[in-house]
Amino acid sequence: MDDAKQVSRGEQTRALILATAMRLFEERGYDRTTMRAIAQEAGVSTGNAYYYFASKEHLVQGFYDRIAAEHAAAARAVLATETGLAERIRGVLLAWLDVAAPYHRFATQFFKNAADPDSPLSPFSEESRGPREAAVALHREVLAGAGVKAAPELADQLPRLLWLHQMGLVLFWVYDRSPDCARSRALAARTAPLIARAVAASRYRVLRPLVRELTDLLDDFLTPGRRR
Amino acid sequence: MDDAKQVSRGEQTRALILATAMRLFEERGYDRTTMRAIAQEAGVSTGNAYYYFASKEHLVQGFYDRIAAEHAAAARAVLATETGLAERIRGVLLAWLDVAAPYHRFATQFFKNAADPDSPLSPFSEESRGPREAAVALHREVLAGAGVKAAPELADQLPRLLWLHQMGLVLFWVYDRSPDCARSRALAARTAPLIARAVAASRYRVLRPLVRELTDLLDDFLTPGRRR
Repeated sequence: MDDAKQVSRGEQTRALILATAMRLFEERGYDRTTMRAIAQEAGVSTGNAYYYFASKEHLVQGFYDRIAAEHAAAARAVLATETGLAERIRGVLLAWLDVAAPYHRFATQFFKNAADPDSPLSPFSEESRGPREAAVALHREVLAGAGVKAAPELADQLPRLLWLHQMGLVLFWVYDRSPDCARSRALAARTAPLIARAVAASRYRVLRPLVRELTDLLDDFLTPGRRR
Repeated sequence: MDDAKQVSRGEQTRALILATAMRLFEERGYDRTTMRAIAQEAGVSTGNAYYYFASKEHLVQGFYDRIAAEHAAAARAVLATETGLAERIRGVLLAWLDVAAPYHRFATQFFKNAADPDSPLSPFSEESRGPREAAVALHREVLAGAGVKAAPELADQLPRLLWLHQMGLVLFWVYDRSPDCARSRALAARTAPLIARAVAASRYRVLRPLVRELTDLLDDFLTPGRRR
């Protein structure tokens, strides 16, 4: 009992520090916010803040983890009810836009740090592997539960390709100035049926050379660790 | 005669200021380089520098214009000799990587200013229309001189789609740390035949609904001015 309470209190402190950091990053900018200021605002000691997050980068990783978990939860309803591939893709993308909406201003000012793939904050970095693989797994579920099937040789890379499409949408969203990011929502809604059609078309015999070439390209450029 | 000499001397001064600016941007960073420092290094008065370039943003626009002109010139040989679509696409992309190679370090540190589509330095901005349309025209030529033809409904947007692919390659290149940007070159070489295949496939009857949906999407999201 005591242990459980301890964990729960720790989790609360962790969540408080994270929420405070996100607020300060948005108010003051990521670069100008120090761990000391975050600790002070959260009402904990600087040492305590460092106990939960070893650096500002770790705070952002914590943020990624939370968004990924919230996204997976928000996507549940869609994945449990929709069977059309287009509807499943669209639902999962719109769920991400919903979950991320409160952080839109933060994302804009923060993007310049995440654009560099060598930065630990990049969605392509080794450090971001956890939330990235969670997102890829979600897209694997999108595909698995749909009636439409891709060409077998493409099936392996397709969840990662859907994730890459999501990253494209995120890039679009970061700079979307339309009210309530309506253009990002439109882009998600419009690209989803297009992708579903392309997935179905990947089985056409006549497209086999194209699919094979695409699969080879994805193997070489998209799969971390398999890089030449 | 005197007028011609005047123009030529003016062009020389303009080129000198531009070259000096690029060097200082790379050495000191874009944000920390002032027009005054650029003028001083170039050996002209600050007023003279402002006569040629109204702001630092205009210097970068001048840089874009120059890259676009150099790229068009470098692509000539490929466009005059190659007739295969894959070869033409690959040649034009590799020509860009060659022309841009001396500015690779500058591009990395500069990218954060250009990533925002609302910045005048973005390749999508109103201010970048000149070099953007020059690049689109180059891709129009790539397609026009090739044996393979796209589906008629797609033909109109296809040069712009090739340009968007080039922008994707540029984004990849900006963060490419491989020696001599070998990975960017590989990506250009590998995606070119894939695109050529996809262009040819766009004429298949069975893909008509997919092509139509893609064309509609491009009309709505990719054509400036036609935006809803």
